Amino acid sequence: MEIATVFVVVLWVFSFGGAESMYMVYNTSQGIVPDKLNVHLVPHTHDDVGWLKTVDQYYVGSNNSIQGACVQNVLDSLVPALLADKNRKFIYVEMAFFERWWKDQSEAVQLTVKQLVSSGQLEFINGGMCMHDEAATHYVDMIEQTTLGHNFIKKEFGVTPRIGWQIDPFGHSAVQAYLLGAEIGFDSLFFGRIDYQDRAKRKYEKSLEVVWRGSKSLGSAAQIFAGAFPENYEPPSGFYFEVNDASPVVQDDPTLFDYNVQERVEDFVAAALSQANITRTNHIMFTMGTDFKYQYAHTWFRQMDKLIHYVNIDGRVNALYSTPSIYTDAKHATEKSWPVKTEDFFPYADRAHGYWTGYFSSRPAIKRYVRMMSGYYLAARQLEFIKGRNKSGPHIDLLADALAIAQHHDAVTGTEKQHVANDYAKRLSMGYVEAEKVTSSSLACLVDSISCTRGRNAKTEFQQCPLLNISYCPPSEIDISDGKNLIVVVYNALGWKREDVIRIPVTNEDVTVRDSAGRVIESQVLPLSENYMNLRNYLVKAYRGQSPSKTPEYWLAFSASVPPLGFNTYTISRAKTKGASSARSSVHSLRRGEKSTIEVGHENLKLTFSAEEGKLTNYMNIRSLVNESIQQSFSYYAGYNGSDESPQSSGAYVFRPNGTFLLEPAKKDLLTVIRGPIIDEVHQQINPWIYQINRLYKGKEHVEVEFTVGPIPVEDGIGKEVAAQITTNMETNKTFYTDSNGRDFIKRIRDYRTDWDLKVNEPVAGNYYPINLGIYVGDDKSELSVLVDRAVGGSSLVDGQIELMLHRRLLRDDSKGVAEALNETVCIDKKCTGLTIQGKYYYRIDPLGEGAKWRRTTGQEIYSPFLLAFTEEVKDNWMSSHVPTYSAIDSYSLPDNVAIITLQELDNRKVLLRLAHLYEMEEDKDLSVMTEVELQKLFPGKKIGKLVEMNLSANQERSEMEKKRLGWKVEEESVTKTTSRGGAVDPAKLVVELAPMEIRTFVLDFDQTFSTQVFDA
Amino acid sequence: MEIATVFVVVLWVFSFGGAESMYMVYNTSQGIVPDKLNVHLVPHTHDDVGWLKTVDQYYVGSNNSIQGACVQNVLDSLVPALLADKNRKFIYVEMAFFERWWKDQSEAVQLTVKQLVSSGQLEFINGGMCMHDEAATHYVDMIEQTTLGHNFIKKEFGVTPRIGWQIDPFGHSAVQAYLLGAEIGFDSLFFGRIDYQDRAKRKYEKSLEVVWRGSKSLGSAAQIFAGAFPENYEPPSGFYFEVNDASPVVQDDPTLFDYNVQERVEDFVAAALSQANITRTNHIMFTMGTDFKYQYAHTWFRQMDKLIHYVNIDGRVNALYSTPSIYTDAKHATEKSWPVKTEDFFPYADRAHGYWTGYFSSRPAIKRYVRMMSGYYLAARQLEFIKGRNKSGPHIDLLADALAIAQHHDAVTGTEKQHVANDYAKRLSMGYVEAEKVTSSSLACLVDSISCTRGRNAKTEFQQCPLLNISYCPPSEIDISDGKNLIVVVYNALGWKREDVIRIPVTNEDVTVRDSAGRVIESQVLPLSENYMNLRNYLVKAYRGQSPSKTPEYWLAFSASVPPLGFNTYTISRAKTKGASSARSSVHSLRRGEKSTIEVGHENLKLTFSAEEGKLTNYMNIRSLVNESIQQSFSYYAGYNGSDESPQSSGAYVFRPNGTFLLEPAKKDLLTVIRGPIIDEVHQQINPWIYQINRLYKGKEHVEVEFTVGPIPVEDGIGKEVAAQITTNMETNKTFYTDSNGRDFIKRIRDYRTDWDLKVNEPVAGNYYPINLGIYVGDDKSELSVLVDRAVGGSSLVDGQIELMLHRRLLRDDSKGVAEALNETVCIDKKCTGLTIQGKYYYRIDPLGEGAKWRRTTGQEIYSPFLLAFTEEVKDNWMSSHVPTYSAIDSYSLPDNVAIITLQELDNRKVLLRLAHLYEMEEDKDLSVMTEVELQKLFPGKKIGKLVEMNLSANQERSEMEKKRLGWKVEEESVTKTTSRGGAVDPAKLVVELAPMEIRTFVLDFDQTFSTQVFDA
Repeated sequence: MEIATVFVVVLWVFSFGGAESMYMVYNTSQGIVPDKLNVHLVPHTHDDVGWLKTVDQYYVGSNNSIQGACVQNVLDSLVPALLADKNRKFIYVEMAFFERWWKDQSEAVQLTVKQLVSSGQLEFINGGMCMHDEAATHYVDMIEQTTLGHNFIKKEFGVTPRIGWQIDPFGHSAVQAYLLGAEIGFDSLFFGRIDYQDRAKRKYEKSLEVVWRGSKSLGSAAQIFAGAFPENYEPPSGFYFEVNDASPVVQDDPTLFDYNVQERVEDFVAAALSQANITRTNHIMFTMGTDFKYQYAHTWFRQMDKLIHYVNIDGRVNALYSTPSIYTDAKHATEKSWPVKTEDFFPYADRAHGYWTGYFSSRPAIKRYVRMMSGYYLAARQLEFIKGRNKSGPHIDLLADALAIAQHHDAVTGTEKQHVANDYAKRLSMGYVEAEKVTSSSLACLVDSISCTRGRNAKTEFQQCPLLNISYCPPSEIDISDGKNLIVVVYNALGWKREDVIRIPVTNEDVTVRDSAGRVIESQVLPLSENYMNLRNYLVKAYRGQSPSKTPEYWLAFSASVPPLGFNTYTISRAKTKGASSARSSVHSLRRGEKSTIEVGHENLKLTFSAEEGKLTNYMNIRSLVNESIQQSFSYYAGYNGSDESPQSSGAYVFRPNGTFLLEPAKKDLLTVIRGPIIDEVHQQINPWIYQINRLYKGKEHVEVEFTVGPIPVEDGIGKEVAAQITTNMETNKTFYTDSNGRDFIKRIRDYRTDWDLKVNEPVAGNYYPINLGIYVGDDKSELSVLVDRAVGGSSLVDGQIELMLHRRLLRDDSKGVAEALNETVCIDKKCTGLTIQGKYYYRIDPLGEGAKWRRTTGQEIYSPFLLAFTEEVKDNWMSSHVPTYSAIDSYSLPDNVAIITLQELDNRKVLLRLAHLYEMEEDKDLSVMTEVELQKLFPGKKIGKLVEMNLSANQERSEMEKKRLGWKVEEESVTKTTSRGGAVDPAKLVVELAPMEIRTFVLDFDQTFSTQVFDA
Repeated sequence: MEIATVFVVVLWVFSFGGAESMYMVYNTSQGIVPDKLNVHLVPHTHDDVGWLKTVDQYYVGSNNSIQGACVQNVLDSLVPALLADKNRKFIYVEMAFFERWWKDQSEAVQLTVKQLVSSGQLEFINGGMCMHDEAATHYVDMIEQTTLGHNFIKKEFGVTPRIGWQIDPFGHSAVQAYLLGAEIGFDSLFFGRIDYQDRAKRKYEKSLEVVWRGSKSLGSAAQIFAGAFPENYEPPSGFYFEVNDASPVVQDDPTLFDYNVQERVEDFVAAALSQANITRTNHIMFTMGTDFKYQYAHTWFRQMDKLIHYVNIDGRVNALYSTPSIYTDAKHATEKSWPVKTEDFFPYADRAHGYWTGYFSSRPAIKRYVRMMSGYYLAARQLEFIKGRNKSGPHIDLLADALAIAQHHDAVTGTEKQHVANDYAKRLSMGYVEAEKVTSSSLACLVDSISCTRGRNAKTEFQQCPLLNISYCPPSEIDISDGKNLIVVVYNALGWKREDVIRIPVTNEDVTVRDSAGRVIESQVLPLSENYMNLRNYLVKAYRGQSPSKTPEYWLAFSASVPPLGFNTYTISRAKTKGASSARSSVHSLRRGEKSTIEVGHENLKLTFSAEEGKLTNYMNIRSLVNESIQQSFSYYAGYNGSDESPQSSGAYVFRPNGTFLLEPAKKDLLTVIRGPIIDEVHQQINPWIYQINRLYKGKEHVEVEFTVGPIPVEDGIGKEVAAQITTNMETNKTFYTDSNGRDFIKRIRDYRTDWDLKVNEPVAGNYYPINLGIYVGDDKSELSVLVDRAVGGSSLVDGQIELMLHRRLLRDDSKGVAEALNETVCIDKKCTGLTIQGKYYYRIDPLGEGAKWRRTTGQEIYSPFLLAFTEEVKDNWMSSHVPTYSAIDSYSLPDNVAIITLQELDNRKVLLRLAHLYEMEEDKDLSVMTEVELQKLFPGKKIGKLVEMNLSANQERSEMEKKRLGWKVEEESVTKTTSRGGAVDPAKLVVELAPMEIRTFVLDFDQTFSTQVFDA
């Protein structure tokens, strides 16, 4: 009634336009009103760090024919829009963009923005370089990319983000909630995508907002308030205000036609009441923005100003400018209790046949590249620290940036356009080149025994082999002759001494391998098979522009033993006598159908193959008394092509199989058995485009399976998704376990969800889960574990069986926006063939309860393989003139259940250290216990001056974080096992306790006066 | 070379991104460099004052689903963009939008904008309320809408626009060039659309830029520098920088990928050289903008900043921020000579089959409405002045605004969407309602003889009949009975005494008409035919919601005689005696085929119809001895529907006939002849959807043809465009004459253009020209003239014949953007039928050289018909208690060759007066001479205190304008006839001289102390 009067008066005053002033000041100052429904308008933009365009293209706004998007516009226009009204607020999320923008700004603008941040008008939330994916990412990468962003924010603005904002990733992981949420110090975590069935139930029960306890080991000690949005992260329908958006603007000028204030207020109130109806408390959030919006921020704020003004005059609901922090505090202030959520939100389906489980495996090559670089980065930071960081470069920061960006939920996921995938790969490659300079120079300084911190360089020049995965390693392919030997320095980034077999391509089979003491050690030469050679030559030509000049014919294998955080040196020379030469492998081919079996393996582990059936039949470990009948198989799923009735196709995001087809090996195919003292291999050409090697190493009790898949034929117009199965007779009762981002294992039950009664629409795709570390099944006597070399989708679709999706080649886009079919090719001279994928997985069968140790330890070894550096020994005796072996921690060794996941010298010469307990509670009878690390022993020769425990992203002291942390009440406190955490570190003793699954982050100051550089010359 | 070095250095400094500052300051300060090619970047937006959306929708940015466009964004974002760099410039054109925006702004913003205007960063050009059309507009409307905008600019900013900017209208008129260009005081005129053949030749000859002399009467005294753009008014291809535009942005950050400065500089230089190649002098203009662009102005300026910076470093061409003023001054400074252009740029074709001659006739109803309102507005301003302007309203300003907007080149043109056409009509209607209050009250004050300037109101209440055109006039349809008579006050807006026949619907045929002296005067009652009744009832129901309650059966006709700028009063009462009653008409129907002729006409003019052929056969004027065989016909053009090979359809813009079909009257059709003392009429039902009346008035020597066309049948899937022909045996030698915006007549020759050798692709459409006043043909002894009641397309496709396009109904869009077929309908209860058009044209045959006087005088009468106001006389004797007759200029009368085209009281009580000489030089042997107006006699009872002669838009003194005007050299000064202009006005004598075609504009101050209000009571 009041409002009607107001309008009439206004109309009267301005009934004749002319030049009478209509200047309106809108009242946007409203705060929370306790007894009303509070509608928190949260202005935001969601800026993908690469998707349809590259990150740089999104930033500068180029390539707009693909997608109209320019982050520079967003940030440029935001500043004046916030200055125009101090009540306006905005959140910014992706630091990769913000950092690009920040360095373009004048000091005046920077000062203004600092004021906007300090006043709370502009708030950074999430704050990593990107909004990382949660399915195909490794927890170390998630931590690193978040730390990078948080560090930037801290440095430039002195603030710490409070809120997790994973609004777009396609499902949500337990590690995200407890590790990248609670352990970061976030007070809440918001996201947009959960299963449509789950969402429906949660709406009905008003349980979209919960207290999420992601880790069973840490329980309520690492819980977070978490909210799933009712629909998505966009505004209510009809409230989009980007330039040219079609939503009705609030037309409040009575001198113009189409005055619509009343209708718009009604629309707003209706949307608010509808959302209130599925939300607890009188606070709801309108996410006012979406992908790349606010290119002209003014357009949104102008409309929101009007809505707040008129809706509050109307008075039925209370509208206010807000942020997720304000919203979280408001929720907290209600002192309500919330439902508890455990485990995770995988898999994600947005509709009956829309299971977003394809991206767990999409673009397996880039997934592997990211994982390789992740391990390499960790080692490189160690070597940089050991040598001492050089301000003038080369830098590892470029690789850090590239890796950070690659964690984006359209990067490592494989859901970006091909040219964008290429961009990520290019960035990784450029970052690697710089990092390699650091690692090579650090190793050179170590072997040359000089201090390189003062700009001096070592004499030794190392080469490395990033393309060893495709059998391409020019430094090892040199012609070894008298007086010219090959030196291999082997670096071990793990905190334990370790033995692993090294395989490098060589051109000569008459070679001798010596250890650092000059002793000849056992080695083996294996033939380099023709398909490997062809693939190598094709890919080198395609990616480096010309075919390799040399063609090594052999693999040389030998076992290296390396101290923790250290290296050992091996010399490869021409064998002077037959006896000193590497052992040649025996090669035996079995034509299928021969009525015989063949057994391979060196000591405890034996695999039996049936020549008649052409396949593996038995797995036996003599030591552990495991003896299981076992089979391996390949199959493919036909990618659903979409139809009028059911348009959803299988694509980069969505896995929608249209039938399963077993790939039976052709009758005439061979089993080729290669045997030797170090390695036994069984090669199988499964079909013209699948090749498999089962590889057993002396001294290891697991099987390494190397697969080569591709080019997947699609000439029949049908996309194919190729999976491998390992099948046993174990009675696994629909149950299997998959890791969460390489950390906690979560129990999965086929065709079942913990949180709701699952309606099964997709019996295959709906049971797929993301795997980063491994997957295992068990029965009452044993457990079968599989570890992976990259992010991959997997399941156990049949009891006793584990399945991994290895490669996907599809011909249709799956309508989730990428607008390209996932059809990767490799081209030479414009002739393209489907991409061939090479990779490995590892499996082992243990007695029940004994698998964890292998999974955790070998998992670390897969993540952090030996780093090999090559150089030539010419004439002089290398070993006598160089440091042949070294450990940064001297005689210390980390406990078996601890890994150093970060060891990095910071800008300010301080050191960032993260230690991770590798086991969950009750995972291993010996290792799932509180453990200790003696810090001073980690830094021999240095005196730790100051030690500060930090939150996970190292942007605040842990104690401060704990102090600020909001406590949340839960509805029914279930009886959970007592969890524990390590205690405070005594500055005198410097012993760090780590409870199961605990990661502790420290910043250390060394007492520089005390420092004695080990190699100071 | 230099630039390469710069880039290398930059790359080196920033080779590692991080947070190093990349803040760039671009050098945009470059001015003109005399010895280089200067590329004038002219940032502009082209904002249609209604087209696909209404003017208000464009302003606020609603209805974006139709077209993403929001002028508010443009102007909002412009201010900070200009403030960010003082070298940036922008031009703004359409004041209808700017005025809306201006009143929304705070004082602070207004102050800032005033500074931007005064510094020249923001320049208003063109500066009318809209960018008016040039084909379907009347010169009075063009002047009025320009004056309205210019007055706003002058009032708020104290500046006068210097440049004409008609970049989008579809062809360009002579009146635009000399009257709305030179006479406004513009120094140049730019436009985008000229015939593609003309453009090609002009590019080749570098004659896109010319000195245009639009009037043969005023010649070089009213010339203007005029430039046609080489392509359109958009930026060079690849230089579009709106949010989300696909043109490559200048990526000059070497730390990001896709650095492209060199390529973009190359593109820019190439575009500049290409344009320089077709342009004289070393100045070219890049029109940096297009329709509704600069919604986020920053996006354009950021890129232009970079282009100017890097292009000038490159140095091959000189790029600068500029405006058309700066460009014009630069052209002028070169002191080059330019080709002379005379006549106009009609018709416009953008390709072989794309003649934009359809819009000359599209939406004939709105064209008529605009013309009616234009004449009404002129009269209303007079009556407002006579009564004295009342500040508190009612106001005529609303009608002024509505009329101004209706002149837009997608308004009166008929090329807007239907909903937008409705919007224009609504605005006119609302404006009319207010204006009617002013005219009724002014007449009431005059008849009641009271001064109404001091808030007093007259007793008399007048009603008017805006729907008289559809025979709907409730005040005249009252039941006249004893003691209740109808008073009709007839106002004459012309400067001459005038007699014209009035026709009003009445319910009774026994009526008497008396003049103001009480004398019974001759009158006639005619039957109101059934089709008129049906159409009236249908339209009233459709537009007013309910059918009229009464149904008059008759027209009452009588001749009114009214003094100049004054009124006379007539009384209509029930006839008391048979003898005093109106004459009844004789009605005689001739079935076709009867072997007889029939002659109609009162005195000198006689038309002969053949009953056998069912049509007109002869035209004879006894006085002038003209006797011509004559025929009338109707035909339709089938609208081309577009095909794959030739996609251009006939539509709102384009006339593309696909065959001509003569509409032969059916055999059985009747000629109905109605005769009486005042009017003779011959009615013909041509076919079921065409009805025609030839009407002859006693005392007039021309024929009024009233046509009713529609609903045009389209059930056959073919759109139809209906034309009428008048055919004589005159030998007109391909030549005909059409007016320019109702003013100068231009000679047209069929299949010929003055400026180039025409390739004839469309023999019909390519010979169509716009007509606002009339069209005539002649041979060696006589001339046939046709005058029109609205803008219409016409031609002479056959010697001796004149053709007018009356109505168009089409089923395809013609791909010029409107995206609707021109298919107007009228609906009742969702049942729609094609729109029926009713209208008139007038023709006459004169001896050679004698037609001008009729065309000019009758043209004025058609434009300014009598304004009729009705009231009832109850009991008392009206004539004795009221002022029965009046002239604002007492006994004075304007010369026959002069019209008052503006008489308006301004805000400041000053008076704006425009006097127009109606004749061209050599048009009439008596009237094409210098003439005089005695100003003081125009204002009896008032003393002219001060008289200032102004430019046409009255925003500056004429003398100032002449002083500033740039002189231009022409290539070959052709021998032209001496032109003349009236001399300065002697302030003592106050006599205004007017040369042929001259319009002079004055602002008068009356000495208020002297003023004696004539009717002050």
